[in-house]
Amino acid sequence: MKENILNYPTVDLNEAGDAVLIIDQTLLPKKLEMIELKGAKELWDAIYLLKVRGAPAIGVFAAYALYVLSLEIAKQASTAKEFYEEFKKQKEYLNSARPTAVNLSWALERMERICEKGLSGAILPGAAKGSGTSSSGSPDDVGMIRETLSLLKEEAVSIHREDTETCRKIGEYGLGLIKPGYGILTHCNAGQLATSKYGTATAPIYLAHEKGYDLKVYADETRPLLQGARLTASELSAAGLDVTLLCDNMSGSLMRSGAVNAVFVGCDRVAMNGDVANKIGTSMVATLAKYYGVPFYVCAPTSTLDPSTKDGSLIRIEQRPASEITEMWYSERMAPEGISVYNPAFDVTDHDLVTAIITERGIAYPPYEESLPEMLER
Amino acid sequence: MKENILNYPTVDLNEAGDAVLIIDQTLLPKKLEMIELKGAKELWDAIYLLKVRGAPAIGVFAAYALYVLSLEIAKQASTAKEFYEEFKKQKEYLNSARPTAVNLSWALERMERICEKGLSGAILPGAAKGSGTSSSGSPDDVGMIRETLSLLKEEAVSIHREDTETCRKIGEYGLGLIKPGYGILTHCNAGQLATSKYGTATAPIYLAHEKGYDLKVYADETRPLLQGARLTASELSAAGLDVTLLCDNMSGSLMRSGAVNAVFVGCDRVAMNGDVANKIGTSMVATLAKYYGVPFYVCAPTSTLDPSTKDGSLIRIEQRPASEITEMWYSERMAPEGISVYNPAFDVTDHDLVTAIITERGIAYPPYEESLPEMLER
Repeated sequence: MKENILNYPTVDLNEAGDAVLIIDQTLLPKKLEMIELKGAKELWDAIYLLKVRGAPAIGVFAAYALYVLSLEIAKQASTAKEFYEEFKKQKEYLNSARPTAVNLSWALERMERICEKGLSGAILPGAAKGSGTSSSGSPDDVGMIRETLSLLKEEAVSIHREDTETCRKIGEYGLGLIKPGYGILTHCNAGQLATSKYGTATAPIYLAHEKGYDLKVYADETRPLLQGARLTASELSAAGLDVTLLCDNMSGSLMRSGAVNAVFVGCDRVAMNGDVANKIGTSMVATLAKYYGVPFYVCAPTSTLDPSTKDGSLIRIEQRPASEITEMWYSERMAPEGISVYNPAFDVTDHDLVTAIITERGIAYPPYEESLPEMLER
Repeated sequence: MKENILNYPTVDLNEAGDAVLIIDQTLLPKKLEMIELKGAKELWDAIYLLKVRGAPAIGVFAAYALYVLSLEIAKQASTAKEFYEEFKKQKEYLNSARPTAVNLSWALERMERICEKGLSGAILPGAAKGSGTSSSGSPDDVGMIRETLSLLKEEAVSIHREDTETCRKIGEYGLGLIKPGYGILTHCNAGQLATSKYGTATAPIYLAHEKGYDLKVYADETRPLLQGARLTASELSAAGLDVTLLCDNMSGSLMRSGAVNAVFVGCDRVAMNGDVANKIGTSMVATLAKYYGVPFYVCAPTSTLDPSTKDGSLIRIEQRPASEITEMWYSERMAPEGISVYNPAFDVTDHDLVTAIITERGIAYPPYEESLPEMLER
């Protein structure tokens, strides 16, 4: 792979405007391949199979995906009501692809609100005269659907643009926590490949690098799917950073050696008490950081703060297939046949292990019950 | 692989008595293959390439290996002095295969003392008349070498037998720390495959299993070389235990769920203040166990207690090749070309994270500066 992956969009609408364009991240680091997706199943699969991954990128992807599906729905639907019913069905289907990241449902909800706004003349109780009963669309419905499609596209593009802006701002806030010469550890990939641009955990790193801070970045490989080895190591070294790869069980040894000045990670969902759901192993890194006195920073767009989740115990953790541990990636099966496997995709980090949560609206410090609602209100 | 690996010796002398017989552990779990080794380079490689691994097994292997090499040396040596010089050279060569485990040098030292005892008539200052100056062996020298070979074989067999006995006793002491229904986490392989029999960390587990304790055992896969997935999961499930495999970064999540009642690990070297060198990741498990209030037990034959090491900072940690992380086991390279890699084979666990150290002579509790010397004196 010769090209710099940072020159390619993680997620975008294709040029024709009728398919979602992504880097197929399951092929990295061997191959940089852009793929176009438009069918419901292939869009769902792209999320489930981690061709696109990272909470913010999944949000952007979901918005574009639902817009692309809406184009097809519009071709089939006779009425605005039919369009709306099918839209909701496809939205729920996409939403089922991964349960832990809040951005998936957050972006889909935003799209649904826009859809409802566009169709309000037809779907609000008593609003539409005759709409939904006729078998062919009235001229009103056709216009309404056309207008709604245009609003949906606009909203998806907004979500995309906002994500880029959010990451840049997280980078600016995070930069204040970094000093020249720092050793920084990160887990999984909360990089540009997990967002539309800059990344979340990597945004302060990229900005510090631009300023010539001379950082040393350490990337946990992040078993079982090796996002650290395949993605973070690739994108950071493509950007010219000094990056060292290690196995997940080596970060304690590294902190003990004094090489790590700060930990930056992304997150999939933050409860209102500051408990953080992120890639499996994050809570381990946080526990080690606390023991070794290293600050542990979570980079969290406010879209990942979930007002409906009081604490981490309420976050549903996705369990993934055993084969990811026993055979995936390997040329030979690496565990005995029939062995039981524990394979949660995420874990919850207790808020008492989190030094600060960096959002695009500022840095939240404990007590999080007070600082997080304040971030949401800003 | 159909056969039960527990029915095969991890290390032994072959039937002809002129080669070391081992299970080639790099082929597990796919293939159970016994190999015979006698050349110096292939014996050294077996340790370096982890065909035989685990501190106690390496000790037994080294003793047999040095005996087997002595048979060849005896064929070449004209005098007892020549035999002794070559013996010491081969001993140093074997000793260079891995630096962290103390058992390697411990077993080789025992063999050297026996060699010196057998040859004392020729090598002690002023003891031998003429020996070492003639170019062909005197009848005295020939007899002395023959006698020394016999003593060396006896010593190697003793080291082997003592190891089995030691593991059984560690199992008995450890059993008292386990209750029926316990969930037990272990890291790497300190099982039968790491010793001559029973294992160290697994000895209490095997004994509890025999007593019908209905345990649930969790095995960290142990990157980069996956000894947990390939070896521990294999031998425990072969013994009929309920074993669940997990990635190293999942043990914190597992402890948080309350599934783990105790951690048992082996060790490669214990400093006199209780700092423990063991497979990379051990200190991580210990830190997590402390945070989640789970007792952390180290199973340590007294041969791993090193009176010459005051604390863990004095233990040399072996660094291994980057390819173990970036490509070994994988069908495709899983990290970008040219990436830096941090790959220590071991780490040091602070004594304040260790609940107790279980030896074959009893259980040592903090303060270890007092309890460990007492164990060595028993």
